[in-house]
Amino acid sequence: MKIDSLLKIFVPKDDSFFPLFEDGAHVLIQSADLLKQLMLTETIDQRAPIIKKIKSMEHQGDEITHKIYQQLNKSFITPFDREDIQELASSLDDVVDYINGTAQRIGLYKLKVIHPDFILFAEIIYDAAKEIEFSLHGLRHSGKNHAKIIQSCINLNTLENRADDLYHDDISQLFENEKDTIELIKTKEIFATLEKSVDMAEDVSDVIKTILIKLA
Amino acid sequence: MKIDSLLKIFVPKDDSFFPLFEDGAHVLIQSADLLKQLMLTETIDQRAPIIKKIKSMEHQGDEITHKIYQQLNKSFITPFDREDIQELASSLDDVVDYINGTAQRIGLYKLKVIHPDFILFAEIIYDAAKEIEFSLHGLRHSGKNHAKIIQSCINLNTLENRADDLYHDDISQLFENEKDTIELIKTKEIFATLEKSVDMAEDVSDVIKTILIKLA
Amino acid sequence: MKIDSLLKIFVPKDDSFFPLFEDGAHVLIQSADLLKQLMLTETIDQRAPIIKKIKSMEHQGDEITHKIYQQLNKSFITPFDREDIQELASSLDDVVDYINGTAQRIGLYKLKVIHPDFILFAEIIYDAAKEIEFSLHGLRHSGKNHAKIIQSCINLNTLENRADDLYHDDISQLFENEKDTIELIKTKEIFATLEKSVDMAEDVSDVIKTILIKLA
Repeated sequence: MKIDSLLKIFVPKDDSFFPLFEDGAHVLIQSADLLKQLMLTETIDQRAPIIKKIKSMEHQGDEITHKIYQQLNKSFITPFDREDIQELASSLDDVVDYINGTAQRIGLYKLKVIHPDFILFAEIIYDAAKEIEFSLHGLRHSGKNHAKIIQSCINLNTLENRADDLYHDDISQLFENEKDTIELIKTKEIFATLEKSVDMAEDVSDVIKTILIKLA
Repeated sequence: MKIDSLLKIFVPKDDSFFPLFEDGAHVLIQSADLLKQLMLTETIDQRAPIIKKIKSMEHQGDEITHKIYQQLNKSFITPFDREDIQELASSLDDVVDYINGTAQRIGLYKLKVIHPDFILFAEIIYDAAKEIEFSLHGLRHSGKNHAKIIQSCINLNTLENRADDLYHDDISQLFENEKDTIELIKTKEIFATLEKSVDMAEDVSDVIKTILIKLA
Repeated sequence: MKIDSLLKIFVPKDDSFFPLFEDGAHVLIQSADLLKQLMLTETIDQRAPIIKKIKSMEHQGDEITHKIYQQLNKSFITPFDREDIQELASSLDDVVDYINGTAQRIGLYKLKVIHPDFILFAEIIYDAAKEIEFSLHGLRHSGKNHAKIIQSCINLNTLENRADDLYHDDISQLFENEKDTIELIKTKEIFATLEKSVDMAEDVSDVIKTILIKLA
């Protein structure tokens, strides 16, 4: 227990962080939704505008992260530990960064065909984003929502395991079947950023679990 | 010097962290030993059970890290600075993660032949794990063990330099001699995760050095 | 506002960090200058001594970072928040690490031809290093230099956007035109470390911005 924690008993908490995290969750959901749309396109021309929108989501995410840091600096007493707020903001931003990284690569590499498992990954990422949104909203009243948030973190862990298995199957098949090395390099890298996006989503839920433990 | 440090003079320290770090060191040693075994296998069939065991080691490592974080939250006074405990736990976990990452790739890429220098790397990683184990045990009585722990950190630095030279030679030769691009991609990536494992081990010793400086 | 911040009102600050950061900026400038020189060489023989010098710069950078951490531990009151000093030191070190990573790869991969855009990247990195040097010197008297440092951070952001666009064009063209897969792998990785160097430089300016906000 830190000195800061002792102070929290006597000074009212600053609740202005909750709307900022909810904004962050909203940007994440929109990015994940755009990624799903991107994976369902059939031509390069259809992709360009979606990739651009994802890029602009990433900028919005950056701005929200920046606002959270500024708010952190102005606040005397925060609803959770300062380092957890910082970690939560940066891990949330990381998910959006990886979604954008995936989208940018699809544009950059001028992929002719979207691998069918890219769609499965985009769906897992979207479902993970939904769990994160649920948990972040729940934190406002973490006492009564405790069990539900824990369940949501478990769901996210299940999604991450599914993504992990999918990634292993895909990479393994890719090395067996893809004879065009350039295509292999491109596809492998996109699978890696997709899988990393889900890892990053799990990192968010790890921070949320840490916060819940401390609030308990 | 932080306020926390002042408090430490008056309140008894919580020593429950030492057994947890020793558990972590034990998981690391076992993972490194399994990696050496993996590198000495001759067929894909021999590899599968070892790779699975390394994966389960990685899970055990995660659980220990989680316990350390929980303990950190419950403890009023810690034997070293809180951020150093957190850093030590996460850097220890990173070494096991990279060992697992190497093992997973060997399985995933269905490598036909284990490169002879993979064995050299696995030996360096095992030796580094032994130094980490020694240092972590030494921290219980850091006063009388100070010189020995410093020596162990120097040994780890020597191992890291050796790994660095080995990596450079291997990558350089790989680009010169490997004409099969797919094999080159696979082998290069495994060398990179092996070298990164040693880097991560050195990060652990950097945290230990920081702790020693503060305790001095 | 943390307890530490309250203390700062009554206890004189420790200004010994400024010369250390200025040393760090000097190492960065020298590394960036050597990288530019490296990109202008015409033969592998000319490259070896420059690559060696960059490696030794990286070691000097490590030593300065270590001195900053030691100083941090000895200081009761610091000119900025402790975590910002740590972050500033490590982000500064990261830029030099990526410059060295680029140089090492150029040596390791025995590149026959230096891609003309490598020179453009090295120039952006050098300009970014100059902005960092300017900002770090300005921090000594952050009150009167506030507007100039902010302008310098904006310049760095502009450089990062330019590097980003350049990277996208280069990777896109590389996949279209480079038919030798091995050359593609090598060149792509060097573009990636060059672009990452600029990202790391922007991270330094993000820490500086955080410090300015807190001092305002």
